[in-house]
Amino acid sequence: MKKQKLKPSSMLNPVPVVMVSCKDGDRENILAIAWAGTVNSDPPMISISVRKERYSYDIIKKSGVFAVNTVSAKLAETADFCGVRSGRDIDKFAEKNIEKFYGETGVPMVAESPLTLECKVKEVIELGSHDMFIAEITNVYVDEKIIDKDGKIDFKKAELVAYCHGEYFKLGRREGFFGFSVASEEVLKRRMNKK
Amino acid sequence: MKKQKLKPSSMLNPVPVVMVSCKDGDRENILAIAWAGTVNSDPPMISISVRKERYSYDIIKKSGVFAVNTVSAKLAETADFCGVRSGRDIDKFAEKNIEKFYGETGVPMVAESPLTLECKVKEVIELGSHDMFIAEITNVYVDEKIIDKDGKIDFKKAELVAYCHGEYFKLGRREGFFGFSVASEEVLKRRMNKK
Repeated sequence: MKKQKLKPSSMLNPVPVVMVSCKDGDRENILAIAWAGTVNSDPPMISISVRKERYSYDIIKKSGVFAVNTVSAKLAETADFCGVRSGRDIDKFAEKNIEKFYGETGVPMVAESPLTLECKVKEVIELGSHDMFIAEITNVYVDEKIIDKDGKIDFKKAELVAYCHGEYFKLGRREGFFGFSVASEEVLKRRMNKK
Repeated sequence: MKKQKLKPSSMLNPVPVVMVSCKDGDRENILAIAWAGTVNSDPPMISISVRKERYSYDIIKKSGVFAVNTVSAKLAETADFCGVRSGRDIDKFAEKNIEKFYGETGVPMVAESPLTLECKVKEVIELGSHDMFIAEITNVYVDEKIIDKDGKIDFKKAELVAYCHGEYFKLGRREGFFGFSVASEEVLKRRMNKK
């Protein structure tokens, strides 16, 4: 295998793409973020990185709360719009007819999002171009449409998208499940044929 | 839309899944990590979260370096194996015939990985179950097979996988590109038909 060495850049792919909604006083906004990730299991924590220049930066810094709304293929166009337009200029919720719902923090959340995480900021770390907000997940809201008859979340129904090098992709073929590399033939047969 | 409220958990999906390789003295190891993400653009930085109990935790803590190897569909089984087996018990590189290459840090990297990020730890933050290693990306290595004739990376050729709720998925249909929600018809036509 021949390798080309490139200059350092943010080349991790794929990454999540989410709509982060926020509120401070009567200012509500929503923006798209790809620099986001799970950072801790117990307690469940997430990080999002936001440029200081963004309209939402101050809102989140002041309020200490935000929500992470996952993006289905149907929402990809809305998410993209939330990434390229600023809340300084327009009300993105109104512009894109985004239906809202509210939870404990008072932050507006996206009703059409398959799964939304309500979060409280624990720490803000300055890294350079971005500040990283490390937050605890305080509530999880799931659209009933992606819950199957056994009460389990069926993410296939969510049709989530990932972000890869500037493009949005729906998840495609399932390649395996956690532990499939060491699973028995019986388990493999059952679990790989099931879906 | 009806919502179910669930107890807080690490429900962000999809997330990246990567193989993190490391070395301290003569101990080399490789593990799979899904709690990883880009956290800063300039300088380019990444975070990975690792449980203290994991064999690689001490290695990365002591050496201050690691590499993030992206996972193609072909590597999903290898990545899964690196996630369920411990370097305390076996040499995963040998067990899975993982061809290595080396860069500036001396950390072994996965030759078959489409794209590898060599990283230097800047900060370690204790969060609970996991410690978060925030690291600067110091080098990027790309397999020449995913570079097109114009010298650009063609991620379609990489066939990367994402991790969603315990399962590995290849990226599927392209839903759009950054800015497509506000692009002119001409641009949409050109860019959406191109691939």
